[in-house]
Amino acid sequence: MTADQLFKQIREKQSFLCIGLDTDYNKIPKILLDSEYPIFEFNRQIIDATADYSIAFKPNLAFYEVLGAAGWISLEMTVNYIHERYPEIFIIADAKRGDIGNTSKMYAQAFFEKMNFDAITVSPYMGSDSVTPFLEYQNKWVILLALTSNAGADDFQQVVDQNSNTRLFERVLQKSERWGNEHNMMYVIGATRADMLTLVREHAPNHFLLIPGVGAQGGSLADVAKYGFNSKCGLIVNSSRAILYADCTNDFAKVAREKAREIQEEMSQLLNQYKIV
Amino acid sequence: MTADQLFKQIREKQSFLCIGLDTDYNKIPKILLDSEYPIFEFNRQIIDATADYSIAFKPNLAFYEVLGAAGWISLEMTVNYIHERYPEIFIIADAKRGDIGNTSKMYAQAFFEKMNFDAITVSPYMGSDSVTPFLEYQNKWVILLALTSNAGADDFQQVVDQNSNTRLFERVLQKSERWGNEHNMMYVIGATRADMLTLVREHAPNHFLLIPGVGAQGGSLADVAKYGFNSKCGLIVNSSRAILYADCTNDFAKVAREKAREIQEEMSQLLNQYKIV
Repeated sequence: MTADQLFKQIREKQSFLCIGLDTDYNKIPKILLDSEYPIFEFNRQIIDATADYSIAFKPNLAFYEVLGAAGWISLEMTVNYIHERYPEIFIIADAKRGDIGNTSKMYAQAFFEKMNFDAITVSPYMGSDSVTPFLEYQNKWVILLALTSNAGADDFQQVVDQNSNTRLFERVLQKSERWGNEHNMMYVIGATRADMLTLVREHAPNHFLLIPGVGAQGGSLADVAKYGFNSKCGLIVNSSRAILYADCTNDFAKVAREKAREIQEEMSQLLNQYKIV
Repeated sequence: MTADQLFKQIREKQSFLCIGLDTDYNKIPKILLDSEYPIFEFNRQIIDATADYSIAFKPNLAFYEVLGAAGWISLEMTVNYIHERYPEIFIIADAKRGDIGNTSKMYAQAFFEKMNFDAITVSPYMGSDSVTPFLEYQNKWVILLALTSNAGADDFQQVVDQNSNTRLFERVLQKSERWGNEHNMMYVIGATRADMLTLVREHAPNHFLLIPGVGAQGGSLADVAKYGFNSKCGLIVNSSRAILYADCTNDFAKVAREKAREIQEEMSQLLNQYKIV
């Protein structure tokens, strides 16, 4: 998918919502456990219920790997289902991979060829050759971890480099601009840091940012929009648990749809307020 | 597996060799492609041929994920086979995982419960809560990326922290000592940097180090031993391609055994020279 296609979808749906398919076997309604692939069945109902309001889906690999081969099959079925039914939707593998060059090449094959993801999250720790193999695919995306929203984020990401006087996450933004560009690379930026978004936008004014921390993890959508928007939106904001598990009865999909619609309405207001759509 | 059990194996086999099961579907002998699980069949023959000379096996996840669910099944079969036939051998998931706390917990379940790996490689970029969930398992290990041997390693790992005047990989060693200890944590240290091993040993004198870069990637075993050994060996040195693909005919397992034996002999000499066994 191209950046233009993504922006087209944002304008049409007046939304920049990504739904994180962190589908936990222990949290889905018991009635689904009778189906052959309960995780896929849950995902399918969530996808159908929320596709009107979301522009991206983002399965997190851990939730599938924990079920072994059966989990992997549910993941493949989920990706195929989205592509067939909702070809306009952007699909992100939240996998946080990254290894030496020839191994990252294998991961790229796994996620972009064997499965048909549009994007994959990648960890920058091992540097250039751990990232660049993912960038060799036309219309596929790397979403590089820069500044995350979790408790341990400060342990290393805020280290200030003696030579350049920049923080590690800024160095990730700077270095990676030589590997890719705004048409094949995005960044993960924790939304609990709206104050950091201005700094991020200085380094990466035109890139899309994937914001994982709105909702359950805190972070205000209005702040993220204020400091993070660019002229083509430039934001994909994720919500997982707040939508997936808004209701744990057989009405889960209906309630998830309501929850997604609420977020989309707030997003629509912001997109209009900043004259982006 | 405990550190004592691992050292016992090192003494008995006079070896600290780990064999990386980076099993590439395109590189295995064609005759194996007729079996139901070619990757497992290749692994099984390599394992049987080399178990006398190696103390650990290390499947790299990328090579299994690229085959989808079938790859995942081959991986599970491989781990189960090693545990059943060679219960003394240490099994490492070279997965380089790491995510927010509740997600790393899922990965830990996937690799330590669903599958029965003894250890997993973890990327430190996201900090404490991305690593600590893996440390909650008795006799299981985190092998944390510190200083890798690939081309891009210098991009971030050598950044010098303005406050502590230490490099990023040193900071990883320092910080992580608060999360775990020499009984549940090891470090990945690229062997192409024998000069850096002295520095690593100042920070982590008692930890095991996993050295990936001997053989195809260069790096001298004698140097690694000289600067890396501690009184309980403290080293696990990996070789993958140099053993797996030493021969591409139907004799591959026999030739792999010879290759592993050659490395083990050099290791035995070094272990004796430094009076470790």
